[in-house]
Amino acid sequence: MHKFTLASFALALALPAAAQEEEPVTPGSVVASASAEEWVEIAADDLLVMELAPAADGSERRVVIQLMPPPFSQPWVENIRTLAQAHWWDGTSVYRVQDNYVTQWGDATEEKVLPEGVRSPLAGYESTNGAATEVQMEAMNPIELGHLLEQGTENPEYRRNRAIQEHLRADPYAEQTAFFMGWPIAQGGSIYESPIWPIHCYGYIGVARDYAPDTGTGAELYTIIGQPQRHMDRNLAVVGRVIEGMEHLSSLPRGHGELGFYAEDEEHLRTPIVSVRMASELENAPRFEYLDTASESFASYVAVRANRDDPFYTVPAGGVDVCSVQVPVRPVAE
Amino acid sequence: MHKFTLASFALALALPAAAQEEEPVTPGSVVASASAEEWVEIAADDLLVMELAPAADGSERRVVIQLMPPPFSQPWVENIRTLAQAHWWDGTSVYRVQDNYVTQWGDATEEKVLPEGVRSPLAGYESTNGAATEVQMEAMNPIELGHLLEQGTENPEYRRNRAIQEHLRADPYAEQTAFFMGWPIAQGGSIYESPIWPIHCYGYIGVARDYAPDTGTGAELYTIIGQPQRHMDRNLAVVGRVIEGMEHLSSLPRGHGELGFYAEDEEHLRTPIVSVRMASELENAPRFEYLDTASESFASYVAVRANRDDPFYTVPAGGVDVCSVQVPVRPVAE
Repeated sequence: MHKFTLASFALALALPAAAQEEEPVTPGSVVASASAEEWVEIAADDLLVMELAPAADGSERRVVIQLMPPPFSQPWVENIRTLAQAHWWDGTSVYRVQDNYVTQWGDATEEKVLPEGVRSPLAGYESTNGAATEVQMEAMNPIELGHLLEQGTENPEYRRNRAIQEHLRADPYAEQTAFFMGWPIAQGGSIYESPIWPIHCYGYIGVARDYAPDTGTGAELYTIIGQPQRHMDRNLAVVGRVIEGMEHLSSLPRGHGELGFYAEDEEHLRTPIVSVRMASELENAPRFEYLDTASESFASYVAVRANRDDPFYTVPAGGVDVCSVQVPVRPVAE
Repeated sequence: MHKFTLASFALALALPAAAQEEEPVTPGSVVASASAEEWVEIAADDLLVMELAPAADGSERRVVIQLMPPPFSQPWVENIRTLAQAHWWDGTSVYRVQDNYVTQWGDATEEKVLPEGVRSPLAGYESTNGAATEVQMEAMNPIELGHLLEQGTENPEYRRNRAIQEHLRADPYAEQTAFFMGWPIAQGGSIYESPIWPIHCYGYIGVARDYAPDTGTGAELYTIIGQPQRHMDRNLAVVGRVIEGMEHLSSLPRGHGELGFYAEDEEHLRTPIVSVRMASELENAPRFEYLDTASESFASYVAVRANRDDPFYTVPAGGVDVCSVQVPVRPVAE
């Protein structure tokens, strides 16, 4: 934690010449030096732009969301596209903010009719004790990380993948964790046979539901605003992540009703949602790209995250939590 | 993530009679049924009360901090007591809020003279490459978890401790994690010989510093407002945690200067600190207690956190991250 404020920050940057000659390697410097080919543009169909009502000082509040790619949570993701195309969220609100947990949005009145075709992907399953799990697993269409292995251990991508897993080291919630097509994932056991699932890191978005696991459509969404909530993995559908404007959801006033919902006398604190649009529907839509998680630069980035070696850190951690390896995302340079 | 808003919340609570008869076991229900003897009152000398300027709506903003007990970070904790007794923080401010990272406070002018006796505990060590580490380790006066073992494996406290460690399962940053005297800790290796250290979970407080590791006194403090920042463990001194009013630090507007400091044109966003007092200096000081981490109820609480088994969760996690086991703290009933 840097102590310096702006004045001393300038001072601190005036390092001795020797230190300046050899630029310290930081997660940021690794990302900055990644080659153009290592970045992957996010398809406009996978981007949502949510416009909140302006802040008290009149400034805009735009939140950009990247939707989860196959094979994960696709029935819910499809619902979300339908809801956005129907402009269903326009006029709804952010109605729940629970500290160190979630910010949640959608229709607080619970009376807004859903667009045709939007229903719970688990409709028909009423049990809460196992059946839902099987269905969720099936919906995930589990794939195997092992496909890389088939290319042989000399494959550079395979070797990078193994190196990354060594830095991830151990995980309290899964047999192993990894990165797959730009997303952190967890896995239950052998890489040949076990299901994989998406996880609840900071800024990741899931589908709210009632007690029964078949009650979530994607109309009511939440994002994690504190520590990761990994116990929700496999119990709720992770459908995307915030890639711009997270502060507009994380810094909202907390709710003091049950579970962080705004209480009756706090309803004025709800943040109006002006609109939610697919980027593919917008003129001049923002464009974003993520650092290919199979790239050499991403492997270096994980290594540096696991063992900081720059003037500020003297004890390298020796490992890194999968959620602390935030996948780099940035606007596409025009 | 519960979908229900207040209306449906009432509905959702109207479970079938069978479910109501057998109350589901949740982390909250375990804590609620802990016996009075399992709670430990926090000494008034270990409590700081920070009063921020009132919020825009005129409401009070009080933050209560519990200081770290021996053997951890005591030279800095002692400085913090001295600073509070000198009323040094009165009139300072919260001047840095970086999303998913830290909120930091102290003297933004960097000109306020420190009280007599407050200097960096590492003064005299100028190296950033190893020497500081050794000194920090020494300052921690490493103790051994093994003291429990000496009482024999039949000791109930020993058995509970082992059970907790099994639920904590694995950690990316340390050989093992555990709870010690009400605090989560990490350990580097064998429980007989290895150093232990305090960790950076949500709401935990550390000592800001410049590049050199001997530049932190405790006058400038930060708290974690997003995912745990475990890579800072052993590189910065963890000196306490927020036990009340965390939302007053986590929901502040983010800064857009370098590293989340408020930029020049954002300085009006700084939150004034009205006062910081030791509870022992206050009349009618608030009193708090924590659930003894060596108690039977705490062991049950960890077990339930690791494997939720209530109507909302259908897939138990099978483990839990040490930072996701927040040590229960509550006001002492008057």
